[in-house]
Amino acid sequence: MKVIIINGPNLNLLGVRQPEIYGNRRFEDYLRELRVAFPELQIDYYQSNVEGEIINKMHEVGFSYDGIVLNAGGYSHTSVAIHDAIASIKTPVVEVHISNIYAREEYRRHSLLSDACMGVICGMGLEGYRLAIEGLVQASK
Amino acid sequence: MKVIIINGPNLNLLGVRQPEIYGNRRFEDYLRELRVAFPELQIDYYQSNVEGEIINKMHEVGFSYDGIVLNAGGYSHTSVAIHDAIASIKTPVVEVHISNIYAREEYRRHSLLSDACMGVICGMGLEGYRLAIEGLVQASK
Amino acid sequence: MKVIIINGPNLNLLGVRQPEIYGNRRFEDYLRELRVAFPELQIDYYQSNVEGEIINKMHEVGFSYDGIVLNAGGYSHTSVAIHDAIASIKTPVVEVHISNIYAREEYRRHSLLSDACMGVICGMGLEGYRLAIEGLVQASK
Amino acid sequence: MKVIIINGPNLNLLGVRQPEIYGNRRFEDYLRELRVAFPELQIDYYQSNVEGEIINKMHEVGFSYDGIVLNAGGYSHTSVAIHDAIASIKTPVVEVHISNIYAREEYRRHSLLSDACMGVICGMGLEGYRLAIEGLVQASK
Amino acid sequence: MKVIIINGPNLNLLGVRQPEIYGNRRFEDYLRELRVAFPELQIDYYQSNVEGEIINKMHEVGFSYDGIVLNAGGYSHTSVAIHDAIASIKTPVVEVHISNIYAREEYRRHSLLSDACMGVICGMGLEGYRLAIEGLVQASK
Amino acid sequence: MKVIIINGPNLNLLGVRQPEIYGNRRFEDYLRELRVAFPELQIDYYQSNVEGEIINKMHEVGFSYDGIVLNAGGYSHTSVAIHDAIASIKTPVVEVHISNIYAREEYRRHSLLSDACMGVICGMGLEGYRLAIEGLVQASK
Amino acid sequence: MKVIIINGPNLNLLGVRQPEIYGNRRFEDYLRELRVAFPELQIDYYQSNVEGEIINKMHEVGFSYDGIVLNAGGYSHTSVAIHDAIASIKTPVVEVHISNIYAREEYRRHSLLSDACMGVICGMGLEGYRLAIEGLVQASK
Amino acid sequence: MKVIIINGPNLNLLGVRQPEIYGNRRFEDYLRELRVAFPELQIDYYQSNVEGEIINKMHEVGFSYDGIVLNAGGYSHTSVAIHDAIASIKTPVVEVHISNIYAREEYRRHSLLSDACMGVICGMGLEGYRLAIEGLVQASK
Amino acid sequence: MKVIIINGPNLNLLGVRQPEIYGNRRFEDYLRELRVAFPELQIDYYQSNVEGEIINKMHEVGFSYDGIVLNAGGYSHTSVAIHDAIASIKTPVVEVHISNIYAREEYRRHSLLSDACMGVICGMGLEGYRLAIEGLVQASK
Amino acid sequence: MKVIIINGPNLNLLGVRQPEIYGNRRFEDYLRELRVAFPELQIDYYQSNVEGEIINKMHEVGFSYDGIVLNAGGYSHTSVAIHDAIASIKTPVVEVHISNIYAREEYRRHSLLSDACMGVICGMGLEGYRLAIEGLVQASK
Amino acid sequence: MKVIIINGPNLNLLGVRQPEIYGNRRFEDYLRELRVAFPELQIDYYQSNVEGEIINKMHEVGFSYDGIVLNAGGYSHTSVAIHDAIASIKTPVVEVHISNIYAREEYRRHSLLSDACMGVICGMGLEGYRLAIEGLVQASK
Amino acid sequence: MKVIIINGPNLNLLGVRQPEIYGNRRFEDYLRELRVAFPELQIDYYQSNVEGEIINKMHEVGFSYDGIVLNAGGYSHTSVAIHDAIASIKTPVVEVHISNIYAREEYRRHSLLSDACMGVICGMGLEGYRLAIEGLVQASK
Repeated sequence: MKVIIINGPNLNLLGVRQPEIYGNRRFEDYLRELRVAFPELQIDYYQSNVEGEIINKMHEVGFSYDGIVLNAGGYSHTSVAIHDAIASIKTPVVEVHISNIYAREEYRRHSLLSDACMGVICGMGLEGYRLAIEGLVQASK
Repeated sequence: MKVIIINGPNLNLLGVRQPEIYGNRRFEDYLRELRVAFPELQIDYYQSNVEGEIINKMHEVGFSYDGIVLNAGGYSHTSVAIHDAIASIKTPVVEVHISNIYAREEYRRHSLLSDACMGVICGMGLEGYRLAIEGLVQASK
Repeated sequence: MKVIIINGPNLNLLGVRQPEIYGNRRFEDYLRELRVAFPELQIDYYQSNVEGEIINKMHEVGFSYDGIVLNAGGYSHTSVAIHDAIASIKTPVVEVHISNIYAREEYRRHSLLSDACMGVICGMGLEGYRLAIEGLVQASK
Repeated sequence: MKVIIINGPNLNLLGVRQPEIYGNRRFEDYLRELRVAFPELQIDYYQSNVEGEIINKMHEVGFSYDGIVLNAGGYSHTSVAIHDAIASIKTPVVEVHISNIYAREEYRRHSLLSDACMGVICGMGLEGYRLAIEGLVQASK
Repeated sequence: MKVIIINGPNLNLLGVRQPEIYGNRRFEDYLRELRVAFPELQIDYYQSNVEGEIINKMHEVGFSYDGIVLNAGGYSHTSVAIHDAIASIKTPVVEVHISNIYAREEYRRHSLLSDACMGVICGMGLEGYRLAIEGLVQASK
Repeated sequence: MKVIIINGPNLNLLGVRQPEIYGNRRFEDYLRELRVAFPELQIDYYQSNVEGEIINKMHEVGFSYDGIVLNAGGYSHTSVAIHDAIASIKTPVVEVHISNIYAREEYRRHSLLSDACMGVICGMGLEGYRLAIEGLVQASK
Repeated sequence: MKVIIINGPNLNLLGVRQPEIYGNRRFEDYLRELRVAFPELQIDYYQSNVEGEIINKMHEVGFSYDGIVLNAGGYSHTSVAIHDAIASIKTPVVEVHISNIYAREEYRRHSLLSDACMGVICGMGLEGYRLAIEGLVQASK
Repeated sequence: MKVIIINGPNLNLLGVRQPEIYGNRRFEDYLRELRVAFPELQIDYYQSNVEGEIINKMHEVGFSYDGIVLNAGGYSHTSVAIHDAIASIKTPVVEVHISNIYAREEYRRHSLLSDACMGVICGMGLEGYRLAIEGLVQASK
Repeated sequence: MKVIIINGPNLNLLGVRQPEIYGNRRFEDYLRELRVAFPELQIDYYQSNVEGEIINKMHEVGFSYDGIVLNAGGYSHTSVAIHDAIASIKTPVVEVHISNIYAREEYRRHSLLSDACMGVICGMGLEGYRLAIEGLVQASK
Repeated sequence: MKVIIINGPNLNLLGVRQPEIYGNRRFEDYLRELRVAFPELQIDYYQSNVEGEIINKMHEVGFSYDGIVLNAGGYSHTSVAIHDAIASIKTPVVEVHISNIYAREEYRRHSLLSDACMGVICGMGLEGYRLAIEGLVQASK
Repeated sequence: MKVIIINGPNLNLLGVRQPEIYGNRRFEDYLRELRVAFPELQIDYYQSNVEGEIINKMHEVGFSYDGIVLNAGGYSHTSVAIHDAIASIKTPVVEVHISNIYAREEYRRHSLLSDACMGVICGMGLEGYRLAIEGLVQASK
Repeated sequence: MKVIIINGPNLNLLGVRQPEIYGNRRFEDYLRELRVAFPELQIDYYQSNVEGEIINKMHEVGFSYDGIVLNAGGYSHTSVAIHDAIASIKTPVVEVHISNIYAREEYRRHSLLSDACMGVICGMGLEGYRLAIEGLVQASK
């Protein structure tokens, strides 16, 4: 079973960026743990700050992978194009947000992507990625 | 470690009510499995159709339990009072929705409770309750 | 054939409350007439000021009765939970309002329940209950 | 006692137009039944697709008839002029909609006419016309 | 110099309709006075309840008359088509409302026509027509 | 009979200010003509750029004069306080705008004052003041 | 193959009305060219300023013609009744606007008709009618 | 003279709940002082987290008591049903909020109850209850 | 202890202005009573119809007085400048409205000042000033 | 004469993506036909999922080509930057949408690009590209 | 070259008022520095808390000075009258805000004045006044 | 001291694009002057039409440069992702717009970026870049 985690803009700064909101752990370190926790899975990882490259990657994996965990960062609130990419592919997508976006600025409380995803996990910290993968594994059974 | 699942209005009809949205499994059956999956936890369960009784229960457990998994059903979208109950207690609360509320009617896309909760898990089916408990267990470490 | 009339908050004060809007007749007196008018029907009656108890009653009758006439009073404008109860049961529901809610305060002009009901009868005074029962009888033919 | 049923735009296509919403019965057939059901009443009928002609007709009957049953079709949602006609005449008007307009498109959920009418009956199918006439008969007693 | 007064829907009922708002004088009586007051003018009069006929009339007079006094009644608040007719012709148009529309229902406080007209006179009673004609006479000097 | 014209902010610049909108005639010149046109009236004039001084003046004349012609300029769109002054006095007030405010910026299309005034005359140029006085004279008959 | 062009209010003034927006060519001249361009088609033409007559015409042709090209002018932005007529008939309808309505006044940027039509062609000048007919011809293949 | 204080949801946690907003004093302690301050009054107290029970209590006291001090907590912002209860009874009601609700979250700045109450006292801390009782005493003179 | 009552626009007309809303008592008479009721306090009084003069007065007293009771009249709903004055000074401010502003026109239901004040007392009639002073006295203890 | 078709995000999946909305034909196949249909034209083609690359391409061709047919996909509803690119170049742009965007989700009914384009063709299927080219050819004559 | 700095309400309290937002420096001290920095300029200064006096001053200098630096404080967000004063005069106006108004309360994020000004400088602290003067000097070259 | 100017989409066309709005000078020419004016500074320059590349550049310089002058063009109004990039880095950012965006289209009057920036300079033409650099230099002292 193959899943991929796709992180959007500014998430390359995790551990550096606003640690009071996003914590102080680098994603790469967390990823290593995640792969240990799911030894039976192939867990790929992709990050880009470019909206269109995220779409390119989703097209690339979206007909062969078993699950996508997507944290589209700031594009979550503005991108109809990523929404359409999710709706255009076959692989189920779970949306993850590290912080509780519903407790933040008004414009961050609404994700344009959620209705095209299988589900949403939000506010559970980095742990949210793990829960998303578990959810994908369960759903594929 | 003690957690409680609190289900709100109409969730007593799970398995009977609109199965195309909520699935056709009774919650009691699922609960049994859940307890097997977390043998080290005490998992209590409470359901009520009365908004104020849900608040009463939260007050009762909210200073002694280690976590609350709350699916407030229709009250999620209208209850400032439950929101205030979450903010008034000490125990962390994870909000769960079985269906993807962001892909449904306009008035169902916004939960008044989310900003007072630790996190939100939505659209993952009954499985969402399990992920919520895992999240609570992780967060308590 | 069995139908039930469910009245919501403050409708226990009918005949006492704001008679310039709701008239000065007690519901019990009207109910007696109604039973005379439909001798072939069993017409039950339930009133509660508690949102959740209305839901409880709807669950109780909603899989065995042939029709529900619902005047949810102030909850009509705020209750997603009662809306979901209507959608969750099998018995058809006709919504009734004694006064013409569309000619009153802005927040009273929109009922959250209407789209889940079979139909709506409004502004016809107490007579509206009778018309609702006739409609249910016709529809069951 | 004299009542008139006034049907607005596209209702001349009843039985032909979108039968999944409006049923497949022609209004003329239904009208015949209605006259049988109320042998003591004179029930006139008028249909026009022209907003101003509906107003003309209301002026014509609005000071001598005992009741008007009005289904203004699409004009219900846009016509201040018909609203004013209702408010300008003496005869009481009951608004009827065959389908449950509150369960349809956003712009169809609000009738500009309702607050000037005596009452509204909606979603009860063709039967709604009969209930409206009964309501007018009762109210005239 | 030739001017025409065009009255829209329900204004044929002036003197009969809601006298507490519109006064109890028939327009024909007022018109006679008006012609006396402006002996040097040809003052024509047209009334219709049909939106399109009002447009027809405006096309007919809109390239040869010196002024139009328009009270479009309920169409003032809903008719882009009459707005466009005003903008399409050469003759200047003054909009008149008998009552103070800004002190009435929300939907009556905005006229779609005003921005295409030369000016607006409102709340001055029937007298408003006279003021409008004077304004047109002055402007033509 | 005594009337007063009250002009609000920036109207002291008439003839200088944006002549493409407000014309190039000074108000004092126009006023002279006005007094000639109504020899039987006492026509006072007051201008201030200070909202509170306009209110002071209205209190001063509002129980003894026979009419007020008010062009509150920019305060028309923002002043609840002037609205309340109009409602607090006995003298009838006619609101005048030189330009057609309904054909200008969005925020200029709504006057907070109109509903407290007897009527509104707008877009008729300086001539609007004359029409307003005529209207007041007629209404006082 | 039979198609009909239906033009709404004020389009009888084409060539006369606001030539900076609508051009200075009469529709009749253009129509002649159009018929030459499609010698194999019967191209009928109908224009009315009356909303209800447009509906009447659509009912008349809507079950026998192969295509309708509709420019409903100002009614495009306000008519639920014409929307319903489009939805009630069998013949496919293409909506045409001569000017680019999306670059004009706010209230003109939204057509109530578009969602019931097969497609929309806008801003292409009179040429838009030809493109619409081509589209209908293609679609019928 | 008999008055009753009715506290709504979560106010049983006063002294425990968010002390930075609501202070750290239990209501029972304050109540004792209040009774000392008004020795001539009978001051009853009722608290419930259930919306409908608050309505029940208001019906019970609303025709015999001389005043109600109501802090409906979170229901203030969502309950049309409590609003209707206030409007249905004879006893005057003063609404109290301990914190300044106008300085808090958007949804907490509007009370659905205020327009049916005699007055509102807000942001004065627990002291607000005393001021409310004084106001009721004065008003009854 | 020194407090000042500051009244805004049109409150100089108290007793004269709309007595059905504001009562028929002059403020000066009430003030005399108030000083009797609080013999230990220095109670100053200031009224102005000019927004900026109210700000001037607040600056003057805002660093030496112990409390301000402010009824800013119509400016309550429109003045960011007075809001900022309240936030800029040290003396606590209690906002008072004589009538229940929440039961009046839409634009009068929201005060721009409330969130900068300590508290709000509204709808308690002139008595509200007394309650405000009591609240200030209590809070200063 | 040189024209270019620019397709935006996810349109590389045409024929694969949601065929019930977009049809099941690949764009490349259609393009071949198009070139056959317009032998006298040079028809270039560009597709990118990256917003900025679409802008780059428009800058590149926007001063030398004779027409651009633009289907910006999801960016149509969110991109001020592409809007500005259209307004910055000389070549006329026709906007095309394969599906009828006005009959889809709320956020898809409004294109930010339309007001900067020459015209819009929508809902005509792939055929829309051909009509757009014809329109460009006509307009260039 | 002559410029004037006009400061609006509460800016006389600079250095005293909310120093966490506005800094703790008095404007007079800063002004002295400013005059040193631009020895070739005459820099006048005016402050008032009265909206109308700000307008008076603008009229006074607005046809003879070379530039106005305007910080209208709270009036920036509410004054159409000052907006109109800016539009009525000849001297160019640069709007300055000391704090970043776009990062503050919702109602403070929009200035009614900006569109009539030459430009806006905001969030640069007191330094903003200097940058504004430089901009005016540059623009006058 | 090192600063960088980052220009967003379409700003590569400066001097070519809509000169009536943006002037007719190429940015490179202006940049040369700017470097002469600040001989002690290293002024880098970057332009891209791709949202994500702007973010990449900000990450690259955002922890080592002393200031960023950002004109994000059309992305200013739509990009939460660039907003987040500004908030994620250490270097202060000043937002610049060449034209007065507050005097343009509605959607261009609000910048999503402003609240994360140190300040905003708008409408001062190319000169705005110089003022921004001066502001950054001052702030770093």
